[in-house]
Amino acid sequence: MARTYKKVRYLPGRKDRGHTPASAAEGVEQVLQVQEGRWKLVILFHLFDGKLVRFSELERAIPSISQKMLIQQLRQLETDGVVRRIVHHQVPPKVEYGLTDWGEALCPALDELLKWAASREDFRGALSPEA
Amino acid sequence: MARTYKKVRYLPGRKDRGHTPASAAEGVEQVLQVQEGRWKLVILFHLFDGKLVRFSELERAIPSISQKMLIQQLRQLETDGVVRRIVHHQVPPKVEYGLTDWGEALCPALDELLKWAASREDFRGALSPEA
Repeated sequence: MARTYKKVRYLPGRKDRGHTPASAAEGVEQVLQVQEGRWKLVILFHLFDGKLVRFSELERAIPSISQKMLIQQLRQLETDGVVRRIVHHQVPPKVEYGLTDWGEALCPALDELLKWAASREDFRGALSPEA
Repeated sequence: MARTYKKVRYLPGRKDRGHTPASAAEGVEQVLQVQEGRWKLVILFHLFDGKLVRFSELERAIPSISQKMLIQQLRQLETDGVVRRIVHHQVPPKVEYGLTDWGEALCPALDELLKWAASREDFRGALSPEA
């Protein structure tokens, strides 16, 4: 059966999506706001690849973040629909954090950004004269 | 002949590049800094696809930006290696702005971010029960 999330709403290629330079810039800015906040990207990279992590594990993994700040950043990511909080009803209760499907889908875009940053020297090399 | 910029320095896939969550987050943050500044993304989207644009054309295309701010943002993008300034030695002198090869290579990553933002509703649809 066809799944809703497989519908291709926008064809690849900027022009096909009817973006103007202004609307494209606005779109990217809105996306970047989701990731803004000193710790959000670190949190995301700890959760990619379907990982489910307990609060205490995140605290240990990112020792420089305060408990208050970690709670705040997780809540904002949850509100933005990127992170999900899974409560296991057991004694003592167990709470885990993971990415939503949409949050997981951010991975390729961040990967592209990292590839772009890493390619800088290669492009410099291409500009210098070759023997 | 092999071209330097075609060398694949990092294999695809986060793990192969030896990134930790912290180093990956730092890498993305550095990239985002290049795009920070109220007008940089709009400028970039006006220059993608190899466009060469005169200063006065950019001014007309982005009417809400002041001349001083446009100069400043272009200079920062030039310093970061994203934008190039082409001076045609003629009378009167003609100056155009375009992207460097590296700047042009940012396009796929921004496209991925836009696709991600646009896919939010599709993922929501996937979560609701289907008949």
